[in-house]
Amino acid sequence: MRLILAGGTTATARIPGLSAAGADPEAMPVTPSADLELVEYGAPVRTGQIPVSPTGCPTPALITRAIRDLLEFPVTAIDAGLSVPTGAPTVDIGSAPGADIREETAVSTPEQQVNAAATVTASIPEQRVLVGETIPGGTTTALAVLQALGETPAVSSSLPENPLEQKQEVVTTALRASDITPGACAKAPLAAIEAVGDPVQAAILGMIRGAASSEMEITLAGGTQQLAIAALARHDGIEIPLTVATTPFVVDGQRETITQLADELGVTLRVTDPHFEEGSHVAFQRYRAGEAKEGVGMGGVLALAADADVGMEQVRSRVQKRYTTHIGPPPAQTQ
Amino acid sequence: MRLILAGGTTATARIPGLSAAGADPEAMPVTPSADLELVEYGAPVRTGQIPVSPTGCPTPALITRAIRDLLEFPVTAIDAGLSVPTGAPTVDIGSAPGADIREETAVSTPEQQVNAAATVTASIPEQRVLVGETIPGGTTTALAVLQALGETPAVSSSLPENPLEQKQEVVTTALRASDITPGACAKAPLAAIEAVGDPVQAAILGMIRGAASSEMEITLAGGTQQLAIAALARHDGIEIPLTVATTPFVVDGQRETITQLADELGVTLRVTDPHFEEGSHVAFQRYRAGEAKEGVGMGGVLALAADADVGMEQVRSRVQKRYTTHIGPPPAQTQ
Repeated sequence: MRLILAGGTTATARIPGLSAAGADPEAMPVTPSADLELVEYGAPVRTGQIPVSPTGCPTPALITRAIRDLLEFPVTAIDAGLSVPTGAPTVDIGSAPGADIREETAVSTPEQQVNAAATVTASIPEQRVLVGETIPGGTTTALAVLQALGETPAVSSSLPENPLEQKQEVVTTALRASDITPGACAKAPLAAIEAVGDPVQAAILGMIRGAASSEMEITLAGGTQQLAIAALARHDGIEIPLTVATTPFVVDGQRETITQLADELGVTLRVTDPHFEEGSHVAFQRYRAGEAKEGVGMGGVLALAADADVGMEQVRSRVQKRYTTHIGPPPAQTQ
Repeated sequence: MRLILAGGTTATARIPGLSAAGADPEAMPVTPSADLELVEYGAPVRTGQIPVSPTGCPTPALITRAIRDLLEFPVTAIDAGLSVPTGAPTVDIGSAPGADIREETAVSTPEQQVNAAATVTASIPEQRVLVGETIPGGTTTALAVLQALGETPAVSSSLPENPLEQKQEVVTTALRASDITPGACAKAPLAAIEAVGDPVQAAILGMIRGAASSEMEITLAGGTQQLAIAALARHDGIEIPLTVATTPFVVDGQRETITQLADELGVTLRVTDPHFEEGSHVAFQRYRAGEAKEGVGMGGVLALAADADVGMEQVRSRVQKRYTTHIGPPPAQTQ
């Protein structure tokens, strides 16, 4: 099993209030570059910073890395439109940062990136791949793509209070700017990405194509972003079994919408609970409060840990250790 | 211990007759991209080809990968001026392919690349790093840099018959084109790289700076190319212990020159013999005939194998297995 991480950026994340992936708007473009370093080296070797929210919620990359400490799987990172140099080695598939989806074109020439990602993935020696993503603003572009395809619009958020109305407003403006109506991109996934998507979607659609062509087993780790990508794959005519491995934090409060979308797409939904309610650390509190929720492969590696009989107590203990190393001791008062 | 590989290209390699790194001049720019894939995945996932000479001599990357099968150390690849897309993840340090050293400038803005490589290396969590290189034409740029610095000109070759006269002619033209005399770049290593060097030299000089600043133990794997880089480091004022780990194929026939240069630079030379004379496989025959000789970390990982008590018999057996997988069964007649 190899974890493939697609890291990228979209100018959509600059719209104030949409995302919590980064302490502040300035830090946001650094987040995916830092996430990849944390998973690769266990240290932010070039960016020098661990993404953490103002309330102390750590990036899901910290949880993924904590589990990698315990399981030691190989990782390949894909540059799917990073905008800040990362110290992590990345595969170049010709991506550039995505534009604001309210512009006419969100992603230029997605076909080329999809093809490059497919070629690389198809030839990876492992028979099983787990795919994660890190892109601030990604739940908004996911919503946009689902609507462009005419699918059930499920949408998550890295914020405790999902700014749903604002996201819908952005998406409506985005569809209009690209001169498309909801459902106009059915069976045309590349057109959906080009109009209102992001470069990470192009990279992961390519990985699914690559896995399909070489009969690999592929699991998409993440929430509504990965469901949107699974929808792109179905509209691309890809019929292989697809699993989306996620966390309870994504599913809580919108189980019905998410289950419905997964069912419509013929996607198996796997939810692995790290039982953060059994710890009082600020990291666990913030995830339980609905912050961050998922990302950087977290739901997928939690499932790996469960399959390998690594207890969630061990996972939580490792997360606390990593938190102390990178961010510091948790504050005495965390209410 | 982490293996860091710098892969790059220089237009100098296009001068006919200089290098054997690639089956033919067209294949040469692919070599470093394919080498990195082979070490990372054990398969040429994107380039689709294993570098092998017309006589059947495999790239040293195949030996490095065979040893990695046995030892499982982490690898980080640096894009030090690749010109063909690789499926291997690489760290971007802002390099571009090097120009023909017979032009005025061989490497633009080496300082920036040196700094980026230093930052990344300094923060790598391991306390020991082993550095390898893959750049066709690299022994010629090494000779040029040694002369620009005013050091003993040692020079190896990936060809059985080292085209020494031709190399010296290229270097003399190169120095003249940059308007410098031998020794003119003493204590000015960046000027030497800029005038007559290559982007891999800039990357590895940066790694040495990074290792020096964070008290890491660094070993340079390779032949005269790494000695030239060690010379650049000494002229940069770096006084940490440096070891160059190489193969007997590099040292054979020029032991005196190489030992003298290592002594002058205060560099420990470590030669590890894979005892290819104990096998009749075409790969072993070609190395014994003086082809390829070294590269892609080969001398360094041979030393690792020796230190880990992995027998050379096991190494040779693994090399043969990899040869059969990637290139095919050796011909019945290999005389």
